[in-house]
Amino acid sequence: MIKIGLLGLGTVGSGVYKIISENNIKIERKVGTEVKIEKILVNDKNKKRELNINKNLLTEHPADVVENPDINLVVELIGGENPAYKYVLTALKNKKSVVTANKLIIAKYGSEILKAAHQYNVQISFEGSVAGGIPIIRPLKESLVASEIENIYGILNGTTNYILTKMAEENREYADVLNEAQRLGYAERNPHSDISGLDAAYKIAILASIKFETLIDIISVYSEGIKNISLTDISLADELGYVVKLLAIAKKEEKGLDIRVHPAFISKSHPLALVNDVYNAVYLHGDIVGDIMSYGKGAGQMPTASAVVADIIQTAADINYNRSNIYSNESLQKQKIVDINEVNNLFYIRILVNDKPGVMAQVTKILGDNQVSLASVLQKNRLTPIVPLVLITHPVKEKHINKSIIELKNLDDVKSVESLVRVIDKF
Amino acid sequence: MIKIGLLGLGTVGSGVYKIISENNIKIERKVGTEVKIEKILVNDKNKKRELNINKNLLTEHPADVVENPDINLVVELIGGENPAYKYVLTALKNKKSVVTANKLIIAKYGSEILKAAHQYNVQISFEGSVAGGIPIIRPLKESLVASEIENIYGILNGTTNYILTKMAEENREYADVLNEAQRLGYAERNPHSDISGLDAAYKIAILASIKFETLIDIISVYSEGIKNISLTDISLADELGYVVKLLAIAKKEEKGLDIRVHPAFISKSHPLALVNDVYNAVYLHGDIVGDIMSYGKGAGQMPTASAVVADIIQTAADINYNRSNIYSNESLQKQKIVDINEVNNLFYIRILVNDKPGVMAQVTKILGDNQVSLASVLQKNRLTPIVPLVLITHPVKEKHINKSIIELKNLDDVKSVESLVRVIDKF
Repeated sequence: MIKIGLLGLGTVGSGVYKIISENNIKIERKVGTEVKIEKILVNDKNKKRELNINKNLLTEHPADVVENPDINLVVELIGGENPAYKYVLTALKNKKSVVTANKLIIAKYGSEILKAAHQYNVQISFEGSVAGGIPIIRPLKESLVASEIENIYGILNGTTNYILTKMAEENREYADVLNEAQRLGYAERNPHSDISGLDAAYKIAILASIKFETLIDIISVYSEGIKNISLTDISLADELGYVVKLLAIAKKEEKGLDIRVHPAFISKSHPLALVNDVYNAVYLHGDIVGDIMSYGKGAGQMPTASAVVADIIQTAADINYNRSNIYSNESLQKQKIVDINEVNNLFYIRILVNDKPGVMAQVTKILGDNQVSLASVLQKNRLTPIVPLVLITHPVKEKHINKSIIELKNLDDVKSVESLVRVIDKF
Repeated sequence: MIKIGLLGLGTVGSGVYKIISENNIKIERKVGTEVKIEKILVNDKNKKRELNINKNLLTEHPADVVENPDINLVVELIGGENPAYKYVLTALKNKKSVVTANKLIIAKYGSEILKAAHQYNVQISFEGSVAGGIPIIRPLKESLVASEIENIYGILNGTTNYILTKMAEENREYADVLNEAQRLGYAERNPHSDISGLDAAYKIAILASIKFETLIDIISVYSEGIKNISLTDISLADELGYVVKLLAIAKKEEKGLDIRVHPAFISKSHPLALVNDVYNAVYLHGDIVGDIMSYGKGAGQMPTASAVVADIIQTAADINYNRSNIYSNESLQKQKIVDINEVNNLFYIRILVNDKPGVMAQVTKILGDNQVSLASVLQKNRLTPIVPLVLITHPVKEKHINKSIIELKNLDDVKSVESLVRVIDKF
């Protein structure tokens, strides 16, 4: 029999409890033996809960789970950094396999956690930590094992994707949609982690660690959020054949790993362009398999709980059959991350200039002097005395574009640089 | 050590040989022991080959592989019904696990093959048989195990998807694009299996067997190909907000399993609409995970070889660690398949009628009498004395639409029923 200890009985925890209770027979058939939830750590045993749950299962003492000799499998669903990380390490040291959906501790302490799992000969699984219900981590580790993955492009944050989709579909401004998303519960009251790109940065770091078999220092992952994307940019993108998405990117380059999160224009005909609302997707290119994409709900109680339960079933079966995890790798090495300033990108630049002869010449001179060449120039809705200019560049290093922008801002006839968004045209 | 016997050294077989030779160290790390190709069955040992291969590995005698006591894992890549099926059964009976990419034998003899694998306590895997490089069978069995899949929609045939894409993008007729596809090697000289929908039918039968844990009698899967789709229909679809795809569908219904392959109009905003060229995709709805989609190259030497090698690695590791396959299920039951005549669909109907008063009334009377109600009517390019009429129906049973069509054809003022295509608006 496999005895499970749950840490946390919040949204995802309740979902996991529900799925396991309701699918017990099916799960036991897959695992090959009985599976039982033995203990659940909660903050308050006497709190009123919607779940109909035996009070004897509940405990307020972490040791009843992570040091309980009866328990073989600990499922961490508290979230946040601590005490979650501490509990996970203690569980591993007590020779319990661990399943978690905690992207923060995996992105931040993945190395220590993998080492401990290896040292104590137990398993650690975290399918639920990235892209909720989309099976992505296991396929990355197992089905695609023969293919060298060269790059990963993800839409990994549901909140920002919902906001960008609504802006485009309903012609509404960012702040307006964000307010609504908060009211509907699609965005948190403090949405910083989502809209700043941080949440997506954790997730791409986890995907890249697995597939590139490397350790990513999360602090060195460049991330830029969506709060500067205006409705005007989204409409112009549409006119130019693009949609705007918050992309998480990880690419193997000669100089190291190019890993970053930022808004990007992508072609309407690319499969990622139809990933709308709270959906997530991961688009990969492998040397052997070519391009593949996985799409699905990236968050929410049941999709995440479903990923956690899939991990529980696999791990429980591995414990039952005394199998070791053939995909664990304790010897991960840190990899150099390419400085964002050295990365090449195409850019969309929108500036407002005075409607005077010679202004265009000044602008293009600055760009040319900084090695920025233009793929297209669009002059929009001339409103004398101010003219909006929309420029799309050829590939250029970020440091060169940044220097140009500073110089453009110093020109008397440039009223403002309204926006600067990367254009991803090759996947 | 795991010793592998290959049956066949054609396109996919050579790909598998190449991947295993070039990734040997990586593969052995995943498997946990040495992995070696011991014997390869070929038709002619002395045939000139591009692969640089030790002649001692080759044999013209099947028994050297399927009855060879040194071999633990047989990989069948001959294709076709026989002798492939005979070899697979013999290998299983000789207690060898089998990996195959042969959709025909899995769709046709899946039940017998699974039973034999169970009886002799070995494994059978067939990831490569459906949608080449897209990891779909393993995720269906493993990652989504907690979710009840309610329906599956697939674009599972690369040849037909290539033809439909080119027709739409380049405004070309079916026959013209098919010729080109044959010239380029995207379509076989005898393309019947692809364009008739049969190939897709095998694949959806395999996916449905796994996910619905049932046996599908391939003969009862309705399949309709793309040869009646004209450029006019594709252009009209575009105008109405749709694209035309050859869809493979499997849905659990109260009365049984609704499983079928046919061309369909689908909305341009659905993620399947951007699955173009030779790409394949599988779109699922699960009770817990919601909608998910997997996208990638459905065929070709290396994508298929990659799926086969992933199966080889998993199976080899299972043999090495003496693990049984926790996802096999020998007790599959045949499930009733819903008669296509009883299935409800929306239809697009294009007819040519005489440009006379009262004709529309006659047409709508026949439809109304047969319980067909109309969602929209479009009169196109009036070319007196003939008028093209484009109708979109509300959901209606196939038997009613078929009866209407026969009656419409009998009307004097209906010159012809040009086309009849299902419209899928709910996924």
